[in-house]
Amino acid sequence: MQPATHTAAALAERFGLGLHGDGARVVCGVGTLAGAGPDHLAFLANPKYRSQLADSRAGIVVMREDDAEGYPGTALTARDPYVAFARIAALFEPRADVTAGIHASAVVATDAHIDADASVGPFVTVGSRSRIEAGAVVGPGCVIGDDCIVGAGSELIARVTLVTRVRLGQRVRIHPGAVLGADGFGLAMEGGHWIKVPQLGGVVIGDDCEIGANTTIDRGAIDDTVLEDDVRLDNQIQIGHNVRIGAHTAMAGCSAVAGSARIGRHCLIGGAAGVLGHLEICDRVIVTAMSLVTHSIREPGEYSSGTPLMDNRSWRKSAARFKQLDALARRVNAADKE
Amino acid sequence: MQPATHTAAALAERFGLGLHGDGARVVCGVGTLAGAGPDHLAFLANPKYRSQLADSRAGIVVMREDDAEGYPGTALTARDPYVAFARIAALFEPRADVTAGIHASAVVATDAHIDADASVGPFVTVGSRSRIEAGAVVGPGCVIGDDCIVGAGSELIARVTLVTRVRLGQRVRIHPGAVLGADGFGLAMEGGHWIKVPQLGGVVIGDDCEIGANTTIDRGAIDDTVLEDDVRLDNQIQIGHNVRIGAHTAMAGCSAVAGSARIGRHCLIGGAAGVLGHLEICDRVIVTAMSLVTHSIREPGEYSSGTPLMDNRSWRKSAARFKQLDALARRVNAADKE
Amino acid sequence: MQPATHTAAALAERFGLGLHGDGARVVCGVGTLAGAGPDHLAFLANPKYRSQLADSRAGIVVMREDDAEGYPGTALTARDPYVAFARIAALFEPRADVTAGIHASAVVATDAHIDADASVGPFVTVGSRSRIEAGAVVGPGCVIGDDCIVGAGSELIARVTLVTRVRLGQRVRIHPGAVLGADGFGLAMEGGHWIKVPQLGGVVIGDDCEIGANTTIDRGAIDDTVLEDDVRLDNQIQIGHNVRIGAHTAMAGCSAVAGSARIGRHCLIGGAAGVLGHLEICDRVIVTAMSLVTHSIREPGEYSSGTPLMDNRSWRKSAARFKQLDALARRVNAADKE
Repeated sequence: MQPATHTAAALAERFGLGLHGDGARVVCGVGTLAGAGPDHLAFLANPKYRSQLADSRAGIVVMREDDAEGYPGTALTARDPYVAFARIAALFEPRADVTAGIHASAVVATDAHIDADASVGPFVTVGSRSRIEAGAVVGPGCVIGDDCIVGAGSELIARVTLVTRVRLGQRVRIHPGAVLGADGFGLAMEGGHWIKVPQLGGVVIGDDCEIGANTTIDRGAIDDTVLEDDVRLDNQIQIGHNVRIGAHTAMAGCSAVAGSARIGRHCLIGGAAGVLGHLEICDRVIVTAMSLVTHSIREPGEYSSGTPLMDNRSWRKSAARFKQLDALARRVNAADKE
Repeated sequence: MQPATHTAAALAERFGLGLHGDGARVVCGVGTLAGAGPDHLAFLANPKYRSQLADSRAGIVVMREDDAEGYPGTALTARDPYVAFARIAALFEPRADVTAGIHASAVVATDAHIDADASVGPFVTVGSRSRIEAGAVVGPGCVIGDDCIVGAGSELIARVTLVTRVRLGQRVRIHPGAVLGADGFGLAMEGGHWIKVPQLGGVVIGDDCEIGANTTIDRGAIDDTVLEDDVRLDNQIQIGHNVRIGAHTAMAGCSAVAGSARIGRHCLIGGAAGVLGHLEICDRVIVTAMSLVTHSIREPGEYSSGTPLMDNRSWRKSAARFKQLDALARRVNAADKE
Repeated sequence: MQPATHTAAALAERFGLGLHGDGARVVCGVGTLAGAGPDHLAFLANPKYRSQLADSRAGIVVMREDDAEGYPGTALTARDPYVAFARIAALFEPRADVTAGIHASAVVATDAHIDADASVGPFVTVGSRSRIEAGAVVGPGCVIGDDCIVGAGSELIARVTLVTRVRLGQRVRIHPGAVLGADGFGLAMEGGHWIKVPQLGGVVIGDDCEIGANTTIDRGAIDDTVLEDDVRLDNQIQIGHNVRIGAHTAMAGCSAVAGSARIGRHCLIGGAAGVLGHLEICDRVIVTAMSLVTHSIREPGEYSSGTPLMDNRSWRKSAARFKQLDALARRVNAADKE
């Protein structure tokens, strides 16, 4: 593979960026400020890395206009250098060759429909009445059950399972091991034994969603489980049945949402955070890592639970006192009255 | 697919339910009170949804006898409407056609035994001395290692792995991505390096268990890891080696049990809750979501840890004070003595 | 399978252990002190099980020299009986036959290189420029993408995915469902929509690492995500992009490390514990289960967060007081001043 090369001037023009220094400077890849070489492009977005700029060997650095003043090297300037970097870096991303067509080993139901411009890889199964649309890529080992849709331009990297009644929008990207449309966890107790509640709904995923490795999204009990457009889920996230997640919300790894909860738009859910069932979270809420949302949230803002990290010896003392907290507060109250 | 249709009278008779209103009323599916149409059956179990009853367009509603008094529509009455609904909804569940036999692509050890009435799907491997019993369904992409048993009527939906020495009872249902029988996490430290402790046990799963998507159950170090009958595990649960879980216990998503812990019967373990290793939890214990069980529990009841959700600014203040809690308590004690 | 048998004298010689009692004693398997029969070998390492020794029917027991004094049965003595047991137990581990070669169903890129002494199982795909080295075993259903290396003697049990640019050292063991090298979770917000930041790095795994079932390790954004030698990860762990984990560190199930965090050597991370992004943890740190590391740790030692388990009724009282903790502390301070 001959790597692509780009000049600073060409990048400035292509992405509408300011140019300081040598427009003929050529780069063939990207690097961090600390690790980049003379033929790499780096970026400075977080001010805390500004001190690394002076020593960086990067051939081109993307930065804010302010930071470029007095910078002796070649700079591309942008209001949001991270966004500009993301766009430039995409030029250097190696892409596996994907050819349209169905691999000889794939097992496709006779009443499934695979667009001529879609790609279905080795060891894939596609169930009855399912549809793979134009430009979609279904990687090796994926299982697509009955009544599913893989929208145009969507990509299932490898070993993704769509169990049944899962409809993906366009340009959805799903990472290996993700399971969409498994039975929601619906149980009723009768006479000391569990009875399974049938899960008759499906899963609807909007356009431009991304779903991380080994993430699970159950199908609804009656209605569907829904992710609106541009929802971004990291790895190992659990989404219970009938959950609804608003557009442009992002959730970090290992977070979980219990059944029938509704999360608004433009929310940020931290890693390993949890949301109890049947709650509602309004738009523009931030939940910090490992917090548990135990009641509905009606006001935008940042929310937390938990205790700070301490050395274990000190923590044991605080933890023991936590158990006595009500008694302690009562004594302070009583003393105050005196 | 022509959907099944049922009259209120037929359903009442079949499931032993009370009938109010028009016995000839026909439904062809289920819905929520809010979403159901005139040809759908809905249910009212949780009193908090009672207000939705008046406006519901549902053709038939399953409810308690009390709620049916004065209800002008067609009602089926039951002591537990949710259980009745679960049984009725199963009539409307679409079922994929499963035909007995072994798919041409499957790779089966010569000394494995597949019942003539079992179904083994595409891209499945079955190891030495393993047995797939009558009526069992092994879906696409499953890996069954050596010395495993898939009991009669059990179903492995797709991409399930039974690594080795995993014995499933009857009517066990396992969702995609689940891994049973991987090595337990057994390590010994010698001279600064880890030594692996061989994991020679297996996994035993009782009848009627359900195991969620991407859940993992390790095999025992010496003895087996055991789930008794009718244990219900949601998605992304981790069960360490030599754990034993009592009959009829249900665990919600992302919960985890460390090695050699024993959980009793009829327990409910909340989402993302954890149980430390070698502990014992007695029967009929409820552990709330994201709680950590740090000592054995000898009394039935409900147990919790953690702190409540707060806005981040207030939480930071409480969190800072948590670190000073022992000092605070000492000062109150000292003041009391004065 | 005829089980292997070993005499006490042969085991003592082979592993350099002390021998008390009958050197001709024969065992054909291992057991716990409580469960072993006369032809089993057991071990006593944890003093809390010493009381089980008198009643044990085990043919041979591995123990410390101290414990062997006065023991009437056959004992093998070692400074670390658990290490000695681990080595002996390996003799009794059933091993599936693995034959070198590529299964007829595997789909291997023409420019991939599979060593003649490696084994590639059914339904495996191997991408461009990838290399499977001598003695490596790639089990059924694995997906190896482009530009990956599976080092000599490494084993991918089954259904493991190496997405792209994943380089494994020697003797690495990866359990089913693990996904290495998926896209890191890199997003930039522009005009209310997410933009994906390309993930151009890879994953580097040192020698002798073990990676649990359904664990995920994302590839780096620019540089690589790195596990040094002898890192041991349990099941369902999430490692974000550009994390670095030092040699001989072990992490228990369901723990998670956010992007760009660095963990030192010889650390022990408890189950379901979390580490926030961009932090540094020095060598020889222990983090207890379900703790959240919210700041860098510069001193070896044990660290914790969270609150102790309580009955729910008492917990509710303490939890309510936690919300008032700052006000309470202020009142105590004010009272002190008076």
